Amino acid sequence: MRICLMGFGAVGQGVAKVVSQKKDYLLKNYGMDLKIVAVTDSSGAAISQEGLDPELLLKVKLESGKVSDYPEMGVKAIDGLDVLDKVEYDCLVEVTPTNIEHGEPAKSLTIKAIKNKKDVVTSNKGHLALFFSELMDLSQENGVEFKFEASVGGAMPILNFAQETLPGNEIKSILGILNGTTNFILSRMTAEGSSYEHTLQESQQLGIAETDPTQDVEGIDAACKTVILANAILGIDCTLKDVQVTGISRITSEAIDLAKKDGYLIKLMAEVSPDSLNVSPRLVREDSPYAVDGTLNMATLKTDLADDVTVVGKGAGSIETASAILSDLVNIWKSKKI
Amino acid sequence: MRICLMGFGAVGQGVAKVVSQKKDYLLKNYGMDLKIVAVTDSSGAAISQEGLDPELLLKVKLESGKVSDYPEMGVKAIDGLDVLDKVEYDCLVEVTPTNIEHGEPAKSLTIKAIKNKKDVVTSNKGHLALFFSELMDLSQENGVEFKFEASVGGAMPILNFAQETLPGNEIKSILGILNGTTNFILSRMTAEGSSYEHTLQESQQLGIAETDPTQDVEGIDAACKTVILANAILGIDCTLKDVQVTGISRITSEAIDLAKKDGYLIKLMAEVSPDSLNVSPRLVREDSPYAVDGTLNMATLKTDLADDVTVVGKGAGSIETASAILSDLVNIWKSKKI
Repeated sequence: MRICLMGFGAVGQGVAKVVSQKKDYLLKNYGMDLKIVAVTDSSGAAISQEGLDPELLLKVKLESGKVSDYPEMGVKAIDGLDVLDKVEYDCLVEVTPTNIEHGEPAKSLTIKAIKNKKDVVTSNKGHLALFFSELMDLSQENGVEFKFEASVGGAMPILNFAQETLPGNEIKSILGILNGTTNFILSRMTAEGSSYEHTLQESQQLGIAETDPTQDVEGIDAACKTVILANAILGIDCTLKDVQVTGISRITSEAIDLAKKDGYLIKLMAEVSPDSLNVSPRLVREDSPYAVDGTLNMATLKTDLADDVTVVGKGAGSIETASAILSDLVNIWKSKKI
Repeated sequence: MRICLMGFGAVGQGVAKVVSQKKDYLLKNYGMDLKIVAVTDSSGAAISQEGLDPELLLKVKLESGKVSDYPEMGVKAIDGLDVLDKVEYDCLVEVTPTNIEHGEPAKSLTIKAIKNKKDVVTSNKGHLALFFSELMDLSQENGVEFKFEASVGGAMPILNFAQETLPGNEIKSILGILNGTTNFILSRMTAEGSSYEHTLQESQQLGIAETDPTQDVEGIDAACKTVILANAILGIDCTLKDVQVTGISRITSEAIDLAKKDGYLIKLMAEVSPDSLNVSPRLVREDSPYAVDGTLNMATLKTDLADDVTVVGKGAGSIETASAILSDLVNIWKSKKI
């Protein structure tokens, strides 16, 4: 399987590491020869029909910061859309940064690949939160696979879990913690009695919160994931504007202490149901499945037969997110044997 | 899909309820017409090539206690093995009581069905814990499906989860709570400071512990599940005698209190790894994913890429266990379209 890897930040580099690490395993267990035939970053691209060396890609990126410095195969200042014309590939792996205003460049890259009858795997949330049904319809019209396990919950395999493990069950609703940064901040505030501002700063120093933490702390990231789950699992046709969102930036250490005294924690919960698309801080019992700590993500599926079933996993991390991308690639491979 | 349902206790009746409740859903969503063509209990059987009415089956069982009283189609004192000769079917659903000495009648029923090229779905643990590799080899030789999601963790879909949701990942080991009764007893002892004996009696009155609680409280039930996970997920060829087992009957309320003061809980943990097959009470941190309460089951899969991934669900219950059986039936249907 030949992949075009668009984006070479933390997730893209994780994909290269995983391709390198699992090459023999994939060949042995699935007969799958996974090759990266193109990689892009803001500097340009590296392209090779025979396949790029993932270890060399990582080395070049580490040393110069530019994949276009890849020996002989580097191309400066080429647009991602043009790269898709320059190489034969089976699957676009789209891991560019999320944009929630217009969903670009993910949207255009995805549409171009789908129209060219290529499968697409993404970790991006922006184009999904804005144009889910358009993109899904287009993939079905073109008979290609469009998968996005990594876009919700990183290594927590919520989409595969809901779609594959409970056949015969109807999933009625989902309640979960879908953002690791806010869960980390709230967990630390609870454990240490510290203020929101102080804990946010600390999280930024640890590299868990970003320099501009708005998308995480104001609940926008969790809201994007809410849209993806609503569409993909519950069949609710919705976009980001349909989600009611309240972030955690006004939560005080006093509120957390008060809750704690009564056996409750404050968590940023996402609710996905036909009646409610909502992201907001809620009180949860400290002995409930919602009481997961640190950067963990979790989701409880409410079903008609199996009752509540919960999945917990790492919501972020370069290798963990790449693991979800690899799962999608293996599933496509198993269903198509390209 | 025509099923022979062997055993009509809590799980068997759950299957009948689920077949009744989900008939239209299965037809609409999977084109699957699920029919019960035979049911057995200790009184005999009810057999109909056209399909038995699940609601009438439940009514007859409730009123007389005997499925052989089913109008016109009832057969007294017939052996399950003979029933398999009297009707055409696609899949044996084997839900007779677990026996850990010889695995009968599950073993003989399963072997007969497999040799007749029929698929088999079971909730039974005995024959799996004693003869896993024999039964699995036999099913592969005969080209049939042999599925047992319901045998481990009831409605917690651990087998499907491990096999379907994390492709590309290697599962290194599993650590989990696989017995709901002991988890209930330990949770109550922790919450109420009560003694083991008192809490066991209370659990028996609530119908959570059985009159003879040995298999649960001495860890044998969890050990059977350990064997099944070891074989099915980690490919470890083992049987019940390979598991080191310590139960909970010697846990005192003092030990639980002491643990609690340091932020720990005592849980009956099952460990499944190439180095260790072990069921024993362990200290777990009260803020860890292992701190699930009541009759819940949980399992954490330790993987090479996705790190720890945890699934939590109801370990028992008539409808919940039947849900796992239905999942297996739907998966067989999807793969074969009988």
